[in-house]
Amino acid sequence: ASESNLIRATLFPGDGIGPEIANSVKQIFSSADVPIEWEEHYVGQEIDPRTQSFLTWESLESVRKNKVGLKGPMATPIGKGHRSLNLTLRKELNLYANVRPCYSLPGYKTRYDDVNLITIRENTEGEYSGLEHQVVRGVVESLKIITRQASLRVAEYAFHYAKTHGRDRVSAIHKANIMQKTDGLFLKCCREVAEKFPEIKYEEVVIDNCCMMLVKNPALFDVLVMPNLYGDIISDLCAGLIGGLGLTPSCNIGEGGIALAEAVHGSAPDIAGKNMANPTALLLSAVTMLRHLELHDKADRIQDAILKTIAEGKYRTADLGGTSSTTDFTEAICDHL
Amino acid sequence: ASESNLIRATLFPGDGIGPEIANSVKQIFSSADVPIEWEEHYVGQEIDPRTQSFLTWESLESVRKNKVGLKGPMATPIGKGHRSLNLTLRKELNLYANVRPCYSLPGYKTRYDDVNLITIRENTEGEYSGLEHQVVRGVVESLKIITRQASLRVAEYAFHYAKTHGRDRVSAIHKANIMQKTDGLFLKCCREVAEKFPEIKYEEVVIDNCCMMLVKNPALFDVLVMPNLYGDIISDLCAGLIGGLGLTPSCNIGEGGIALAEAVHGSAPDIAGKNMANPTALLLSAVTMLRHLELHDKADRIQDAILKTIAEGKYRTADLGGTSSTTDFTEAICDHL
Ligand SMILES: CC(C)[C@H](C(=O)O)[C@@H](O)C(=O)O
Ligand SMILES: CC(C)[C@H](C(=O)O)[C@@H](O)C(=O)O
Repeated sequence: ASESNLIRATLFPGDGIGPEIANSVKQIFSSADVPIEWEEHYVGQEIDPRTQSFLTWESLESVRKNKVGLKGPMATPIGKGHRSLNLTLRKELNLYANVRPCYSLPGYKTRYDDVNLITIRENTEGEYSGLEHQVVRGVVESLKIITRQASLRVAEYAFHYAKTHGRDRVSAIHKANIMQKTDGLFLKCCREVAEKFPEIKYEEVVIDNCCMMLVKNPALFDVLVMPNLYGDIISDLCAGLIGGLGLTPSCNIGEGGIALAEAVHGSAPDIAGKNMANPTALLLSAVTMLRHLELHDKADRIQDAILKTIAEGKYRTADLGGTSSTTDFTEAICDHL
Repeated sequence: ASESNLIRATLFPGDGIGPEIANSVKQIFSSADVPIEWEEHYVGQEIDPRTQSFLTWESLESVRKNKVGLKGPMATPIGKGHRSLNLTLRKELNLYANVRPCYSLPGYKTRYDDVNLITIRENTEGEYSGLEHQVVRGVVESLKIITRQASLRVAEYAFHYAKTHGRDRVSAIHKANIMQKTDGLFLKCCREVAEKFPEIKYEEVVIDNCCMMLVKNPALFDVLVMPNLYGDIISDLCAGLIGGLGLTPSCNIGEGGIALAEAVHGSAPDIAGKNMANPTALLLSAVTMLRHLELHDKADRIQDAILKTIAEGKYRTADLGGTSSTTDFTEAICDHL
């Protein structure tokens, strides 16, 4: 690809194992001739007053300009007076939908081999409003906020996703039998959007029942859309079904067509720098970024190579019960490209 | 047992399959010579203005007086102007802790054979405050309320339960990284109580991570204590691990030593009256009631007979893949007593 055809994408390698697994992505992307030029940004050493966090203004501007990015794990430094790095990104970039494809990995055995679903989480409001107060000593309250705008926006995204990804059902997850007004509004918005997609089946499932069904028979589900906290819970539950956060991709969709893919696992400081980390979640997240860019051929090629390498089982990192280094695993993937 | 030694207990057979599974309990209790005299109460035909629900004042008084009861499924009639029957019971009787023992049933195969935990759910406040309002059109909010009083009360119950049931760990489940004030207060109360029980290990687990760990390795958990909605979600998730709500007992603990055991599954109107229902959840709930009364010999004898009958697999109801009727299954349990 000539210089001028390159797509610029922001890369946040992140902390801990972040730089190692980001290297793995860079190596595999270059082996596969992906026409992407990375613009790297690191978490700052002090709080940037413009963002009230360790994320610099420049790094956020980079995502806003490129509209596409990849993010490794970021450990929010301990201390007061600044916001969590993940929450800062969501707020500043208005990342309204968190999308996590979750499927059983052939050859990597868990109790489940029948998972193939997508969780789509509203990512800006609900229980994450940050509004809390103490009424009197010993009595505190938190506000959950649901808006028509954010609910319609994530519902539209979910139905659009289903339609463009060959999925035929959307389940809205809620607790409207208890929170009739908030979750009721969320459902009302989902129903409105559902009417515009008559080819997609629509159902509503109460969250407690949803979790029970997921652990009994995850094959019952296809695309799930839900308010923030339910999405937080259910997306992690689903990751658990297939082996954990080290294996599940995630992508955040923001206003104006931004896509910020991210590995949602931690920065694992205990194994950082030891060439032991599993880059799978970041790699599969990078693949979702390619799909967002409609580079489906590249996405398929890389995804196949990752899945084949895991399925063969010859090269696996320690978290998957193997003894391979990050770089050996990465090279094995390159060999499968 | 002579008349005067009988313990009076309230029985709400409930709707749908309720009366059939309640008969099963009555038959088994009488075969096992349990010294209990049932005081039966049915859901009323119209709203009792004193309770604002179809539950009559007399039926609530019966539980208050007997301090112990057993409840079948109750379908809340559709329509406005009255409260859900389950929520009415919780509020009117101040049922502050919902306790659900959840263990893999030998011989009944699911994806898990290593579940043995207890979920203890705060049952009166949190996300169930009922306080919601519309700020402007399209913007609604719900209040989650956490109090020191209710949090200490359920935490004390959980640690006391662990201590008296030979359990050595309590995990408090929360999302205090987001809801710092509400879930933060809940954790603070748990920590205070934990200090009074130095022999019981105490840990705190974020709810999303907890759900992931539960589906990967439920054996990591022992006693879990949590605010209302998390308890609703996690107790159903755990039921799913071992086969569903048809198999899991539940008991509600109220102020003044009240214990109201209940089957938490639905009233299954489709199979009502057909002698097909599985009475296991109500039976195992009745066993938790016996334990609350410290009738441990009777509890052990009945529980063993239930588990043996299920393990043998000769008599199983349709929901467990068998063809037995409710009465055949019940008689098989009596034979095992
Ligand atoms: C770290 C935490 C604030 C975050 C969340 O609750 O959203 C995490 O669980 C996630 O899912 O990204
Ligand atoms: C029916 C519903 C209101 C109830 C709840 O949310 O508490 C149920 O799910 C339960 O767990 O008893």
